[in-house]
Amino acid sequence: MTLSTLSRSRPSLLFAKKKESQLTFADLGQILGRDEVAVAAIFYGQARADEDDIRKLSKALGLYESVLQAELGGCPFRGGTVEMPPREPLIYRLYEIVQTYGQAYKAVLNEKFGDGIMSAIAFSTKVEKETDEKGVDWAVITLRGKWLPYSRF
Amino acid sequence: MTLSTLSRSRPSLLFAKKKESQLTFADLGQILGRDEVAVAAIFYGQARADEDDIRKLSKALGLYESVLQAELGGCPFRGGTVEMPPREPLIYRLYEIVQTYGQAYKAVLNEKFGDGIMSAIAFSTKVEKETDEKGVDWAVITLRGKWLPYSRF
Amino acid sequence: MTLSTLSRSRPSLLFAKKKESQLTFADLGQILGRDEVAVAAIFYGQARADEDDIRKLSKALGLYESVLQAELGGCPFRGGTVEMPPREPLIYRLYEIVQTYGQAYKAVLNEKFGDGIMSAIAFSTKVEKETDEKGVDWAVITLRGKWLPYSRF
Amino acid sequence: MTLSTLSRSRPSLLFAKKKESQLTFADLGQILGRDEVAVAAIFYGQARADEDDIRKLSKALGLYESVLQAELGGCPFRGGTVEMPPREPLIYRLYEIVQTYGQAYKAVLNEKFGDGIMSAIAFSTKVEKETDEKGVDWAVITLRGKWLPYSRF
Amino acid sequence: MTLSTLSRSRPSLLFAKKKESQLTFADLGQILGRDEVAVAAIFYGQARADEDDIRKLSKALGLYESVLQAELGGCPFRGGTVEMPPREPLIYRLYEIVQTYGQAYKAVLNEKFGDGIMSAIAFSTKVEKETDEKGVDWAVITLRGKWLPYSRF
Amino acid sequence: MTLSTLSRSRPSLLFAKKKESQLTFADLGQILGRDEVAVAAIFYGQARADEDDIRKLSKALGLYESVLQAELGGCPFRGGTVEMPPREPLIYRLYEIVQTYGQAYKAVLNEKFGDGIMSAIAFSTKVEKETDEKGVDWAVITLRGKWLPYSRF
Amino acid sequence: MTLSTLSRSRPSLLFAKKKESQLTFADLGQILGRDEVAVAAIFYGQARADEDDIRKLSKALGLYESVLQAELGGCPFRGGTVEMPPREPLIYRLYEIVQTYGQAYKAVLNEKFGDGIMSAIAFSTKVEKETDEKGVDWAVITLRGKWLPYSRF
Amino acid sequence: MTLSTLSRSRPSLLFAKKKESQLTFADLGQILGRDEVAVAAIFYGQARADEDDIRKLSKALGLYESVLQAELGGCPFRGGTVEMPPREPLIYRLYEIVQTYGQAYKAVLNEKFGDGIMSAIAFSTKVEKETDEKGVDWAVITLRGKWLPYSRF
Amino acid sequence: MTLSTLSRSRPSLLFAKKKESQLTFADLGQILGRDEVAVAAIFYGQARADEDDIRKLSKALGLYESVLQAELGGCPFRGGTVEMPPREPLIYRLYEIVQTYGQAYKAVLNEKFGDGIMSAIAFSTKVEKETDEKGVDWAVITLRGKWLPYSRF
Amino acid sequence: MTLSTLSRSRPSLLFAKKKESQLTFADLGQILGRDEVAVAAIFYGQARADEDDIRKLSKALGLYESVLQAELGGCPFRGGTVEMPPREPLIYRLYEIVQTYGQAYKAVLNEKFGDGIMSAIAFSTKVEKETDEKGVDWAVITLRGKWLPYSRF
Repeated sequence: MTLSTLSRSRPSLLFAKKKESQLTFADLGQILGRDEVAVAAIFYGQARADEDDIRKLSKALGLYESVLQAELGGCPFRGGTVEMPPREPLIYRLYEIVQTYGQAYKAVLNEKFGDGIMSAIAFSTKVEKETDEKGVDWAVITLRGKWLPYSRF
Repeated sequence: MTLSTLSRSRPSLLFAKKKESQLTFADLGQILGRDEVAVAAIFYGQARADEDDIRKLSKALGLYESVLQAELGGCPFRGGTVEMPPREPLIYRLYEIVQTYGQAYKAVLNEKFGDGIMSAIAFSTKVEKETDEKGVDWAVITLRGKWLPYSRF
Repeated sequence: MTLSTLSRSRPSLLFAKKKESQLTFADLGQILGRDEVAVAAIFYGQARADEDDIRKLSKALGLYESVLQAELGGCPFRGGTVEMPPREPLIYRLYEIVQTYGQAYKAVLNEKFGDGIMSAIAFSTKVEKETDEKGVDWAVITLRGKWLPYSRF
Repeated sequence: MTLSTLSRSRPSLLFAKKKESQLTFADLGQILGRDEVAVAAIFYGQARADEDDIRKLSKALGLYESVLQAELGGCPFRGGTVEMPPREPLIYRLYEIVQTYGQAYKAVLNEKFGDGIMSAIAFSTKVEKETDEKGVDWAVITLRGKWLPYSRF
Repeated sequence: MTLSTLSRSRPSLLFAKKKESQLTFADLGQILGRDEVAVAAIFYGQARADEDDIRKLSKALGLYESVLQAELGGCPFRGGTVEMPPREPLIYRLYEIVQTYGQAYKAVLNEKFGDGIMSAIAFSTKVEKETDEKGVDWAVITLRGKWLPYSRF
Repeated sequence: MTLSTLSRSRPSLLFAKKKESQLTFADLGQILGRDEVAVAAIFYGQARADEDDIRKLSKALGLYESVLQAELGGCPFRGGTVEMPPREPLIYRLYEIVQTYGQAYKAVLNEKFGDGIMSAIAFSTKVEKETDEKGVDWAVITLRGKWLPYSRF
Repeated sequence: MTLSTLSRSRPSLLFAKKKESQLTFADLGQILGRDEVAVAAIFYGQARADEDDIRKLSKALGLYESVLQAELGGCPFRGGTVEMPPREPLIYRLYEIVQTYGQAYKAVLNEKFGDGIMSAIAFSTKVEKETDEKGVDWAVITLRGKWLPYSRF
Repeated sequence: MTLSTLSRSRPSLLFAKKKESQLTFADLGQILGRDEVAVAAIFYGQARADEDDIRKLSKALGLYESVLQAELGGCPFRGGTVEMPPREPLIYRLYEIVQTYGQAYKAVLNEKFGDGIMSAIAFSTKVEKETDEKGVDWAVITLRGKWLPYSRF
Repeated sequence: MTLSTLSRSRPSLLFAKKKESQLTFADLGQILGRDEVAVAAIFYGQARADEDDIRKLSKALGLYESVLQAELGGCPFRGGTVEMPPREPLIYRLYEIVQTYGQAYKAVLNEKFGDGIMSAIAFSTKVEKETDEKGVDWAVITLRGKWLPYSRF
Repeated sequence: MTLSTLSRSRPSLLFAKKKESQLTFADLGQILGRDEVAVAAIFYGQARADEDDIRKLSKALGLYESVLQAELGGCPFRGGTVEMPPREPLIYRLYEIVQTYGQAYKAVLNEKFGDGIMSAIAFSTKVEKETDEKGVDWAVITLRGKWLPYSRF
């Protein structure tokens, strides 16, 4: 993932410094004590970086805190970076999963939990790599959200 | 999940018989030796039921094999049952996750695996229920897909 | 609100019986111990009616419980009845409020609560009528949702 | 809510000065004698600032009146700042409420008031924070609009 | 305007009876004491017919009041009959006028009235035919709406 | 209507000079011998300014003819300044009128004139302000277009 | 062009009778004294058939006048039969011509005629077949519309 | 057609030089030995200018060949300059003709030629002005395309 | 591919008879002397079946010629059976190839052939199955279209 | 294919250098040991250039490796350069093929391979030119993708 492709939706400084530092999102995740997906989401303006995250990023990437604060501080305005339906093939596959299995998920979740939703806010996610016995790689994405039952009123 | 709401997109007989039998998708999953999400996907025409699945469903639901064959046999025409963007709140939350974290997933997957995609075909998924120490329920959805690197040509 | 206009999106029996009975949604709300908006939402398939609600509606409207169960039982498939953007002028005004004040609400809520959202699930709403000193009527709609802070992960 | 996220849709000076001054929208509301939502709407170009508002904002934020006049004076061209359907999760929840409960609101309002609409022009709104006995925060948004009956002609 | 073209969006009985009776909308307007546009709007379900209108229509068209009541009674669900952008050339011309002159109307109305809107609810409209000295026909449509200033809050 | 809001769709010089001169569109209309709506439409690039209009505007606003010629000369490329459906509330109300009464207008016009359309080209329009006996203001918009019958071929 | 493909958008009787009679649109055009394109447009509900047309069609196709009157009488509701952008390849080619040459047509027409439009109402069209010296067939479509200059107001 | 309106979609130099030279597209057509519509299409980047065209345009407009080569050379990326549906009224009328008569054209062309399409590539077009006996101007647009029968395979 | 999934877009008789006969599209292709893709396209109403095709299909499937004639005769109205963007995953992959490589195809084709297009009408296509040395199956789709150069006019 | 048309979606340096060097995509393909379509896709940011490709491109085009690295390095963000539906006629023809034959491809592929998809990732493609005995050119595009059967889970 290089500067040129990422910079389409975000200022380049942050990504440029990351590249220069040769730190991966996983490395940054360890430094911040956060998941690598959360760190990448911060880079894309989709997750909040608190004071402590900014301090650590500042050190790791060699950027002034004030610059990072201006770039990342505050509550993000989420949702503006992925076009829907996604045209990017990797992101489209995730979209297709929602399209193909959405009703099945709803049916199974309603059977298991009753009437409600899985929160996308009280929520965490992670990405893992598995290699099977034949040496084939598998990507495993886990979505974990609080179950919110509909209020009766 | 009842007949009236489901029947909007699929013939009612299958759902009616399931309701009558009081079998959950989890029960049917055990009978078929398949995951409950796959079974629900079969009900919505989003996954293939093979001869053996049809035989077992026929017994479990008390429906003629020929009826199930006509309803479920062959290769499904997937993707026609979820409107995008989804208006159903539960399904929308999954869509929102793709929208919010789509670029972060791509960045992390590219770092971990190189240039490619996570397959939505060589793919499985499951839904689990966790209850934390405070008694709060969490839904956990796992997506597992083969990593497909882009061919060089 | 009559049968002919409502029946565009829902089977007519429920609305026909309501009309015949001359009960308002407010009356039904008292019978069910629920808010009138929730009752109307049940009629449109946007809120869940539990066993007890169905029993009381059955009595109030003179409809068999089994009919109501088939019509209203289970977890609703929400979101399918209002076209967006709404073409109906009354509903459009609500949509316009979101469009005009959406960013202001976000800014004020973020200042008051931090990074998160107001839930539309752990949520209740009501409609009130006020008449000012000049005899002019005002509609007051209250939206009350649990504040969900974004998880840190 | 910081400069970087807000500045996507509005010139940065106004938001920069607000941040520098450490005044919240609630503070500014008190200074202007207006609701904090109205003040935030002025910042986003969705509400009108009159001469007096501009004078007070000028003092509070340390900005020339002529600059504010150029930025905020006149009748706003509303509606251009929120994408619909909203991709921002907080704003989407409000949109979802209209989508889920829109018909129920119409049914209840028609029963209470007859044929007409709730005005979004002769209209005010406010946001309140409630904390319940368990220490959980709730956001309460109130919408209050004049009832406009359809003219007979 | 015949049955076959109208019946695309409304039950045919009303239009069939009108055709049989050879009454124009102008004739029906006189009978009801309403403008012909309002009467046509009632036929398309876009305006409310009150008890008195229904009684008079019943006599004029030779239809049972109960039938008309079922068809026209109550508060209409407006906005569902014209596709936007309109494909019908006559209706498209009106749409084009809004598209071409919309900003000019706003600029002139704001200069004349201040910050607000022309109501489409406290509103009446009429259609007139003028023939100029060369024998050329002109259609004149008048839109008259109450001016609603934005509330200060 | 100030520079800042107008300048979103048109170069600022024209509007800036108008503001400086404190001339309204009505004033300019008198100077040009044209309706104020036509003048506003010229400002937004939606109507043609001929040589004479440009000469008079040049004098009234203190702008070089060559500048105005470059800005306003020639046949406009109309239709590019109003987003459809309009998000601006004032312009939306006009759109809603077309949506609600479009079929009624067609039915009444067809009855009055036969098969054809009201021209939006051989067309004029004006805006008037009326104040009723209670002191309430009403906006009156008149649309006047040549009736064009469909050719028989 | 057979019944099965046409009947997607229009009742089958008219097309069935045409097929049975083995009359082409050109034949029917001669019988009616109208262009074959106009006749086809009548069949698709896009052009008006007057009393005389209906009488002649009735004879030619062996259909009762009253049936044709119900089907074709009155002012058509045009524009409802072609999806835009057209998916049908033949119709798409016409759409593509507008897309590719639209601005060129405007530029040339404005140079030739001034500010205005070519009417699509005071309009006729025809289709011709030419065979060049190599025996290759060419389709020639002619569009002829009255030039309407924009009114000055 | 002036610089300001054209320059929305194409660099201004070409149009500026054309204006300065006072040459019409018809004049340029004669100079290039091409139809005026083709010349206008070249200006909008919708048709190919070959070496010879560029040489002649260079002389006629007083522009360096290398500049024209950079601007016009090579195979155009067509289709990007007209928004669909067109909002510009003149171009919309052409679009409306396709929408209204599209199926009629298909029916007549299929009867005349069999199964195939009229090419938009092996294609030419021209615009003519006719003035009838009453002095009324008519625009005549001719579309001429090779008939391409569907291959049997 | 079974009756139930196919019958969503086409009458069931044709597909039912094919299933009963246990003939594949490849078998039918041999019987008709056409490619299997062409035969499948005929089944979906996307390719023309001539008299001879109908006669052979009639024999092969045991259906009356008149029924097949009504179903398949004449020039098809193509393009109506695939939703775009396709939601069906297999068809989406083809769409994604156009989206990803569309500009590259254009650049390479323009370099090889000059200014023009590859025809989709004077066109044939086929599907082949290859198995590589590791036993992995590959699908090979060949598209072959006549090159059409743009006419100079 | 020249700089001016290509530069709409990609920085001009790469294309400018290619033009200057007079190398075709086929030439570059030979230099890189890759297919010409893959090379064009690299230029448009739709395929990955590895270290070796960048080294060879650097030499062939006379551009610094670091510049090419910044421009082309890393995993591309695919899918952003072709508008869908494509307005460019050449690319539209490919889109139309998917639209017309999409279901036929699915039916034939399912018959040949079972339930699955043809991969667009484990995929290669090429473009060939054929000239038939009459001297007519044909373009042949081959798509070759790994067959991915749906996982059973």
